[in-house]
Amino acid sequence: MLKVKVHLNLKLQQMNIGVLGTGTVGETIATALTQKGHNVRMGSRTPNNETAAAWVERSNNHATQGDFNDAAGFGEIIFLCLNGAHVLEALNSIAPESLEGKIIIDITNPLDFTKGMPPQILEGLGNSNSLGEEIQRALPDSFVVKTLNTVNYKLMVDAREVNKGDHHLFVCGNNADAKNKVKHFLVDNFHWKADHLIDLGGIEAARAVEAIVPFWVLVYRSLGTPLFNFKIVH
Amino acid sequence: MLKVKVHLNLKLQQMNIGVLGTGTVGETIATALTQKGHNVRMGSRTPNNETAAAWVERSNNHATQGDFNDAAGFGEIIFLCLNGAHVLEALNSIAPESLEGKIIIDITNPLDFTKGMPPQILEGLGNSNSLGEEIQRALPDSFVVKTLNTVNYKLMVDAREVNKGDHHLFVCGNNADAKNKVKHFLVDNFHWKADHLIDLGGIEAARAVEAIVPFWVLVYRSLGTPLFNFKIVH
Repeated sequence: MLKVKVHLNLKLQQMNIGVLGTGTVGETIATALTQKGHNVRMGSRTPNNETAAAWVERSNNHATQGDFNDAAGFGEIIFLCLNGAHVLEALNSIAPESLEGKIIIDITNPLDFTKGMPPQILEGLGNSNSLGEEIQRALPDSFVVKTLNTVNYKLMVDAREVNKGDHHLFVCGNNADAKNKVKHFLVDNFHWKADHLIDLGGIEAARAVEAIVPFWVLVYRSLGTPLFNFKIVH
Repeated sequence: MLKVKVHLNLKLQQMNIGVLGTGTVGETIATALTQKGHNVRMGSRTPNNETAAAWVERSNNHATQGDFNDAAGFGEIIFLCLNGAHVLEALNSIAPESLEGKIIIDITNPLDFTKGMPPQILEGLGNSNSLGEEIQRALPDSFVVKTLNTVNYKLMVDAREVNKGDHHLFVCGNNADAKNKVKHFLVDNFHWKADHLIDLGGIEAARAVEAIVPFWVLVYRSLGTPLFNFKIVH
């Protein structure tokens, strides 16, 4: 008797994704997504940015680059992988219609490392405000979901890098449907466990997840490795 | 042949301990310590505070009460279990010599719950300052060690309440010897595992451990129980 192997069609839905930012986080996210078969356009302040062009050069044929507005318009969803100090300025250079109705995954942190340890939150963005909320205010017709900002970049794109993925990630944002889509995206692409994604509420919860990053930095200093994460045990 | 049972003398060293504060945290700490055989004086703003007197009434004979200065003078080590908004004022009512050279275990949190969720850090105490640092500045001849402020009160006095004690607690302060003594105290009295106590550095790290409490509150809201803790996995 023949053993018939049934191949379920588990191929991920291919998407067009904009990744704003050419630094380590942006490149890591962009590369991981092209390797999953998504089409990724890396956006930078100027078109033909050297770093972005070099990334396209060494990537597969799913990788393209352009300025912030190109990448935003290209993406069905957009990853913000910019320095927290510059992200609002970057969004200013994007035509509103390029981001309208889209999910914006906000990975940014408003950190100031110039004043010693622990790092501080940028002025005006701590306690009663956050970068997540400022971004949502700047893009009222988009759906900002804050997540991934509390882990090292290697962990962002593969949760299994630490403790076989048994640890937690936090998600917040004003739109439940957008949060659900982002959770599915994280599970499908970055190996996060669905039941390890904790929804902390509306985008104002960004205050809290941004505020734990200075703590994260001190734990990093104490452990000697950035490859760790928080597991909530109860 | 007779089987001789050897009883090691594992009795804890009995200490005199001052616990400032009559709320849930103060009472929980004070009760746990009298049950371990320590002599505990609970301190409040006025002598013969009703709550403190009632606590003495229902406790064993290791429990006494007095005003803040009495309790501070009585203790070899002092627990600060006061509302973050009032702790500095309370310390002002204590004669400096009552606390000189002593270890001060600071459990306080500078939280303001009046402005919605997440709670905010009290004005002037976030980001570039902390209650831990203010307390150390107010008591330059004492050794302030910040710890226990990141867990529910039940967990403070028995780490085994969650995940068999397999989770982490953070300690910071300027004096290494004082931090070591506090770590031993936590292990001996409250069942914290020695290798699960993470030293985050000097008292300025209090900024970071105070800043994660609003995050803790959101996780509490999401989980529906305060009996959880963070386990660092790597």
